[in-house]
Amino acid sequence: MDFSSFLTSLGTSFIIFVILMLVFNWLSKKPSNNVIYYPNRIIKGLDTPMVGRTPFTWMKECLSSTEADVVNMAGVDTAVYFVFLSTVLWILVVSGLVLLPLLLPIAGTAKNVTSKSQSTSKGTFNDLDKLSMGHVKRGSPRLWAFLIATYWVSLVTFYLLWKAYKHVLELRFVALSASEEKPEQFTILVRDIPPVPEGQTRKKQVDSYFKTIHGETYYRSMVVTDNKEVNQIWKELNGYQRKLSHAEAVFATSKTTGKPEGTRPVSKIGFLGLIGKKVDTIEYCNEKISELVPKLESEQKTTIKDKQQAAALVFFNNRLAATSAAQTLHSKMLDSWNVTEAPEPCQVIWSNLHMKFFMREVRQYIIYAIVALTIFFYMIPIGFISAFTTLKNLRKLLPFMKPVIDQAEVKTVLEAFLPQIALIVFLALLPKYLMFLSKAEGIPSKSHVIRATSGKYFYFSVLNVFIGVTLGATLFSTFKTVQKDTSTLIPMLGESLPANATFFLTFVALRFFVGYGLELSRLIPLIIYHLKKKYLCKTEAELKEAWAPGDINYATRVPSDLLIVTIVLCYSVIAPIIIPFGVAYFGLGWLILRNQALKVYIPTYESYGRMWPHMHKRVLVALFISQITMIGFFGVKKFPYSVLLIPLPILTVVFTLVCNNKFYCSFDDTPLEVVACDVKGTPDLELIYRSYIPPCFTSDKIDVFDAHQFEYEFAKAGTSVV
Amino acid sequence: MDFSSFLTSLGTSFIIFVILMLVFNWLSKKPSNNVIYYPNRIIKGLDTPMVGRTPFTWMKECLSSTEADVVNMAGVDTAVYFVFLSTVLWILVVSGLVLLPLLLPIAGTAKNVTSKSQSTSKGTFNDLDKLSMGHVKRGSPRLWAFLIATYWVSLVTFYLLWKAYKHVLELRFVALSASEEKPEQFTILVRDIPPVPEGQTRKKQVDSYFKTIHGETYYRSMVVTDNKEVNQIWKELNGYQRKLSHAEAVFATSKTTGKPEGTRPVSKIGFLGLIGKKVDTIEYCNEKISELVPKLESEQKTTIKDKQQAAALVFFNNRLAATSAAQTLHSKMLDSWNVTEAPEPCQVIWSNLHMKFFMREVRQYIIYAIVALTIFFYMIPIGFISAFTTLKNLRKLLPFMKPVIDQAEVKTVLEAFLPQIALIVFLALLPKYLMFLSKAEGIPSKSHVIRATSGKYFYFSVLNVFIGVTLGATLFSTFKTVQKDTSTLIPMLGESLPANATFFLTFVALRFFVGYGLELSRLIPLIIYHLKKKYLCKTEAELKEAWAPGDINYATRVPSDLLIVTIVLCYSVIAPIIIPFGVAYFGLGWLILRNQALKVYIPTYESYGRMWPHMHKRVLVALFISQITMIGFFGVKKFPYSVLLIPLPILTVVFTLVCNNKFYCSFDDTPLEVVACDVKGTPDLELIYRSYIPPCFTSDKIDVFDAHQFEYEFAKAGTSVV
Repeated sequence: MDFSSFLTSLGTSFIIFVILMLVFNWLSKKPSNNVIYYPNRIIKGLDTPMVGRTPFTWMKECLSSTEADVVNMAGVDTAVYFVFLSTVLWILVVSGLVLLPLLLPIAGTAKNVTSKSQSTSKGTFNDLDKLSMGHVKRGSPRLWAFLIATYWVSLVTFYLLWKAYKHVLELRFVALSASEEKPEQFTILVRDIPPVPEGQTRKKQVDSYFKTIHGETYYRSMVVTDNKEVNQIWKELNGYQRKLSHAEAVFATSKTTGKPEGTRPVSKIGFLGLIGKKVDTIEYCNEKISELVPKLESEQKTTIKDKQQAAALVFFNNRLAATSAAQTLHSKMLDSWNVTEAPEPCQVIWSNLHMKFFMREVRQYIIYAIVALTIFFYMIPIGFISAFTTLKNLRKLLPFMKPVIDQAEVKTVLEAFLPQIALIVFLALLPKYLMFLSKAEGIPSKSHVIRATSGKYFYFSVLNVFIGVTLGATLFSTFKTVQKDTSTLIPMLGESLPANATFFLTFVALRFFVGYGLELSRLIPLIIYHLKKKYLCKTEAELKEAWAPGDINYATRVPSDLLIVTIVLCYSVIAPIIIPFGVAYFGLGWLILRNQALKVYIPTYESYGRMWPHMHKRVLVALFISQITMIGFFGVKKFPYSVLLIPLPILTVVFTLVCNNKFYCSFDDTPLEVVACDVKGTPDLELIYRSYIPPCFTSDKIDVFDAHQFEYEFAKAGTSVV
Repeated sequence: MDFSSFLTSLGTSFIIFVILMLVFNWLSKKPSNNVIYYPNRIIKGLDTPMVGRTPFTWMKECLSSTEADVVNMAGVDTAVYFVFLSTVLWILVVSGLVLLPLLLPIAGTAKNVTSKSQSTSKGTFNDLDKLSMGHVKRGSPRLWAFLIATYWVSLVTFYLLWKAYKHVLELRFVALSASEEKPEQFTILVRDIPPVPEGQTRKKQVDSYFKTIHGETYYRSMVVTDNKEVNQIWKELNGYQRKLSHAEAVFATSKTTGKPEGTRPVSKIGFLGLIGKKVDTIEYCNEKISELVPKLESEQKTTIKDKQQAAALVFFNNRLAATSAAQTLHSKMLDSWNVTEAPEPCQVIWSNLHMKFFMREVRQYIIYAIVALTIFFYMIPIGFISAFTTLKNLRKLLPFMKPVIDQAEVKTVLEAFLPQIALIVFLALLPKYLMFLSKAEGIPSKSHVIRATSGKYFYFSVLNVFIGVTLGATLFSTFKTVQKDTSTLIPMLGESLPANATFFLTFVALRFFVGYGLELSRLIPLIIYHLKKKYLCKTEAELKEAWAPGDINYATRVPSDLLIVTIVLCYSVIAPIIIPFGVAYFGLGWLILRNQALKVYIPTYESYGRMWPHMHKRVLVALFISQITMIGFFGVKKFPYSVLLIPLPILTVVFTLVCNNKFYCSFDDTPLEVVACDVKGTPDLELIYRSYIPPCFTSDKIDVFDAHQFEYEFAKAGTSVV
């Protein structure tokens, strides 16, 4: 890619961004779009200020919002995500303040004898490369500045990450020690309960076990059941109920006009409502509902009685007791009566709770192996794609496209975007697959699954996108050399880095201009909403569902950000010109996501910032990669003092260990001193208990089966509830 | 070493053993030696059965004693040590039952074309080598038998270790759940207490912190003080008191005879009582004591008031609460208010308690580095010694010894023993040094220091004695080759193994015949006791001190046993003839130590079998080494199916991990269900508290300062004790 196509790419991205911003300003002013641009405020019952909004009002609002606002509107997890964004932003700003004025002149004024062979991207000399370390000749004393810069970046990262960790812990502790009553703070999850002894019931077994150990502080227990069947019937029932209210709404609408008797809606009962017998929808649904309600009832009873599993939720009188119980070894063996803190009611993955200890362990290793295979074998398709999407190849492989491609403008645009778009589309396919794998590990909570997915996705991105693209063709052509001697890998990485600087510059720019533009303007949700509103939605509930904004998707957002961190850190010293791009990415990201967090997205769970150690560790991984790369690159430059860089990766490892030792335990377990002050008033234990009853047992539509009966059934199953 | 010198060595060892056994039988019958042969029974107030003892009575007693007897007489730790001995014994017996009948005929009948170069010890062909795997020629199908044997040994080890782990856990749990009141079960150790806030005292700080979190179950606290000075004065005072009673006894003895006024003993007050002014001992001591008592008192007060440190012992009302508290994260950061289970009062290392979290971490790493250096650099002296102690070299280096050495019998004996004795003497110097290093890590309890020492000593032994001796000269001569390519190390180990088989056979035999002979006959303690009794001891206390038997020294005994395990496992397939030697070592060891445990040694602490995971892990390390060695040796034998051995070390790692996951946590923490049933009656908390008062504050000689005052001083220091 030459310099002009780089500028074209940058310019195009910027124009798209400006257009999206204008669209946003225009659309967000229309009151009918409020549900798209302010859903969080609407659901929280706040007003949506409309009058006197200039195009910069939202920016002002974001900049003036405090961390407490974010916690209130979007929870601790979101606030922690902003700590991550701002920490990375500051790392880049502080690094940039030294690196840009120091390195750019040094690189720019260097007289390079080997410039042709060393510093060009794909063989053509350009202006950007003049500003990179590749332009400094081998063994030059100017390299000292780059060495110092490497240290500067690392030290800044350590300092700011350390401060951020402390800050996040404070956020976490404030939230955990808040005096509101949170069900998960009174509950522990018990797994791997041994087989029920002869003549006892599961519930009696659990009750007597915990009663013996915890005495007064023990409240009651809830045995986990296999809810698959109940859930299915319940879903079916819900479906018919929604269909019924939809049909009734349609019927009501048809009445108002000239025809007072209206048209009764009909539908086909076959596959997808496309084939089969025509029936009166209202009648049909009513019939089905009256059929399903008793079925659900009897299935609920059977489930509670006969489908109990070897896991339970155990409730305590106060949160100190529950916290303490969750951290202590109860059983003689770890693989029975295994206790952990309970997840929030809304994020329990019921189907995973019954899995046995060693099954979970084995599954984990198997899934790690599968992920490793995935990461490795995806390299091959990615390699093909990046080889395929060069213009020359395209012209060769698709000769009928020749006339289009050969036009100068099309050529430039295609050359600029094609490889990046291919990559982005490619990556979009992956998260669902990784999420599925993570869930299969037997993890009991959604937030943990999301963290696990995010971790896998990060390693995938870094290995495939970053290292894959960088080594790209080099790796394939010299595959045999590598096999013989893996120690050439690092210098090779060092050599291929500068050649790909412009590729990654464009990649970052595309991500922040187009990605964040789309994010802010919410064009796609807007279009979908309006289509649904016009053609599909008849009832209030359906409409609400159509604009429900969902949450910030950390499973893909965090690893994407971390990929950018890796890229920018790796290039920060080699081609410092990338730093402003990184600053723009995280600055714009902070601003736009702040708006989205305050006004759009609604978090579906709260894990009290448990994502942080995950992000912290991976920023350090990114730093480690960048340090290793720098060692390789200095090796290529034949700089005699490059051994001075060797302490850096060691320092990173030590820093990681120290942080882990000092801070991590407080994320894994809740410290007792944090929950020592008890909640306001006496906690409503009954309410806490009920909040864990799975939704398929607590439909508000069916009042034949309420929570009391749920409990009664447990009682009938053999024990008295105290 | 040729075959005859091997037989000589074996014979000599056996003769020494028989003599020692006869000595034991003769001496142990004399009632005056009871304190040497039955001290444990005497201290426990049991009778020492004397009449009608045949030379085999002690064996019968040992064989008929149950595990419960061992636990009663010598504690759980000793019982666990016997589990270790018997497990290894069974591993060897069961392996031997298959390996000896299978492999010896196969090796013995093999026609070996390359026998000269492959299977000889130090160049001379002998009968022992015929029975080893070295005798089977390269690529022979007979090697299948050896491959299967390797699997058999590993599987037997896994099975028996698994069973033993379960058994040890049961022992541990029975002891922990016993209804007697054990101070350490009511106590936790708190370290890294943050600085005292303005206007508070340390004690108030600790009290209020734990009172807030634990409420009702909290009893009281004891702040750790810097006792160095007090301890010194106390020791000095104790010394004078003992000297005084000794002098009084001497004076009393001198009275009885013709001189009724007696001779007042005198002594010199200079260096070691050899120089200086002559004084009347009784007067001098009384003077010193009356001088030191007030000094001790004032120092005690100062210590309690001004030398408080950032650590404390915290006492609870019941052991369930203490166990639970010891396992939970109290503080927001791990490096403040760090809690652990308290060690037994007798094994607290007071001087280590104040060390800060990160200081402990750093010290640990530094000490690991020092130990690694020690292990590496000791290889050089060991190499020199084993090169030096061959007869040829001895004759060359010490020419004046020539006439002695050249006698045929002397020559054989020397050749047989010299290298082994050199090695054993050499190893005797080490444990103190390693113990010192382990203590410097900041470990709070004696038993833990002993475990740490034992671990270091094991790796030292295995690396230096086993691998060092095996590779011996080979390594030094080919040092440059190894440096170039470390992958030759394993085949080299494989090649040098058979050559050293007879060396290790002799080594093992020497250890069990002479070592255990000396152990049983207790010749050295007996001689020392009789000398002391005759010339030094005048008072009862001094006499008791002279025969005090001490405990089984696990710090050196366990790694020595583990070294034998490593040697025997490594050679079990290569030269199965070593198995009977191993069986004899562990069988004899079990028998003789059983006698010593029941009648002689008195354990100084009880860690409820925490040594077990340590021993278990190291048996697996030994197995792992043997598997790796076998892979190397099969490689040398050019056996095409030797790849089938590769799963074995992987299996060992998996087995280690599974055991660790399943069992280890119960050693690290006490499971709540074990201590759920509370102790008989109400525990005497006052007594528990007092048992932790350091001895320098509770001398029974000085009644001016009793435990109540100790507590009063704490109270005066600023807080009220509830």
